[in-house]
Amino acid sequence: MRYELYYWPGIQGRGEFVRLALEEAGANYVDAARERGTGAMMRMMAGEGVKTPPFAPPFLKAGKLVIAQVANILLYLGPRHGLAPKPEAGRLWVHQLQLTVTDFVKEIHDTHHPIASSLYYEDQKPEAKRFTGHYIEERVPKYLGYFETVIRTSGGPFLTGRRLTYADLSMFQLVAGLRYAFPKAMTRIEKKVPRLVEVHDRVAARPNIRRYLESERRIPFNESGIFRHYPELDG
Amino acid sequence: MRYELYYWPGIQGRGEFVRLALEEAGANYVDAARERGTGAMMRMMAGEGVKTPPFAPPFLKAGKLVIAQVANILLYLGPRHGLAPKPEAGRLWVHQLQLTVTDFVKEIHDTHHPIASSLYYEDQKPEAKRFTGHYIEERVPKYLGYFETVIRTSGGPFLTGRRLTYADLSMFQLVAGLRYAFPKAMTRIEKKVPRLVEVHDRVAARPNIRRYLESERRIPFNESGIFRHYPELDG
Repeated sequence: MRYELYYWPGIQGRGEFVRLALEEAGANYVDAARERGTGAMMRMMAGEGVKTPPFAPPFLKAGKLVIAQVANILLYLGPRHGLAPKPEAGRLWVHQLQLTVTDFVKEIHDTHHPIASSLYYEDQKPEAKRFTGHYIEERVPKYLGYFETVIRTSGGPFLTGRRLTYADLSMFQLVAGLRYAFPKAMTRIEKKVPRLVEVHDRVAARPNIRRYLESERRIPFNESGIFRHYPELDG
Repeated sequence: MRYELYYWPGIQGRGEFVRLALEEAGANYVDAARERGTGAMMRMMAGEGVKTPPFAPPFLKAGKLVIAQVANILLYLGPRHGLAPKPEAGRLWVHQLQLTVTDFVKEIHDTHHPIASSLYYEDQKPEAKRFTGHYIEERVPKYLGYFETVIRTSGGPFLTGRRLTYADLSMFQLVAGLRYAFPKAMTRIEKKVPRLVEVHDRVAARPNIRRYLESERRIPFNESGIFRHYPELDG
C-alpha cells in the first residue's frame, strides 16, 4: 500500500513525528501537500469525499482510511511496521508515551504562541518570554526527566526496553528540536538525561533515519514550525 | 473486574471524561483517591510497583494494567463496554475525535493558566484575559463547529451516527463545562451548534448518567478544576 501523508509543506511541525515512522519503516508514501500542493488537503479537511474529516493536519490516507492526530496515526502504523508491540498491553503503553509527547509538543508550540495561534509571535512576545521562562525551568526538566525515568525503569536502551518503537523516534525529534530552539538551555538540561540523549543518538544512527536526515525530504528547522529559535527566549 | 480510577480528589478535571464512561457502562469501579486518599496514587506515579508509570493522573488500574492518558483509557474501555465499535476503522475514528477533545481541554485549561500551571490564576490574569478573548471568539466556535459538522456528516443523532460512543459523553461534558465557565458567551455560541446541544441533552437523559449526575459521585464544577467560572473572562 502507498500511504499518502497530508501536512503543511515547508515545516517539520507535527507531521515530522509521522514522517520519521514512515522513513524508519521504509514505507511507501507520498508527502502529498509537498508534491501536489495543499488543494486536496484542504478539500479533505472540509469533508469532501471523507467520512472521517480531520480537525487539522497531519492526516494519513491508508487505503480507504483517513486517520488524523499524530498519536492515532502512529497507533495505526506501529504494529504494522514493527514499531510497536502487537499485544494490547504493549500497544497501550507505547501509545501512552506518545500521548505524553503530544502534550509536550503543544507546550513547545506555546513558547512562541502563548496567547493565540492566530497572532504573530511578534504580537505576543512579552507573554512568550514569560511562558518560556517557566517552560524551560519547570516543564522541560519534568517531561525529559519523566522519559529518562521510563528508560531507566525499562532497562533501556530504548523507552520500552530492547526494541525500538515509534515513541523512540519521537524522542529523537524532541531532543533535536529542543537543541535547535533552546541551545543554551539544552546544553544544561541534557546533562541530566543521558539515557534520553542516547536514544536520540541511536535513532539518528539508524540507516533509514540517517539517509532521511541527509535527504531533501527532511525539511530544515525554521521559524514557521513547532521548534523555533528565538534567541531572546533561550534563557 | 473492579477498575480503580486514580485522579485528584475534589475536582472533575480530566478524570471526569473517564468517570462518565465508567458510569454510562455501569462498570464496577472505585474512585481510589477520593475514597482512600492520594498516597497510593503518588506512589504509583513514582513508579512503585508499576512498570508503566503515568506522567500524570488520571490513570486506570485494570487488573494488571495501569493505563494513563484519558484518550488511552477510553480506547481501552470503549470496545469492552459497548462505547466504541470493535472494528479498527471505527475505533480509530472515535479515538481521533477524543484526541481532538484532549486538545480542546488543554486550551480550556489555558484560559485560566496561559503562562504556567505552577502559578496561581491571580498571577496571570492579564494574560488569561487576552488568551480567553481569542479563545472565545476563535477557538470555541472552531472546535464546536467541527463537532457539529461531524454530527451532521454522520447523520446523527450522535457524533458517529446512531450509536452512542464515549466521545459523545465527552461532548456532554464540554457543553456542560463551557456553560458553567462562560455562560454569557455560550448562550450566543451554542445557537450555532444545535446538534451538539442535542447530544448533550441526550447524554444527560440517559438513565445511568442521570443517576450519576444526581449522586454525590458527581463533584460540582469549581474553581480548582479545568472549567472555571471567572466572570471577568466571560466576554
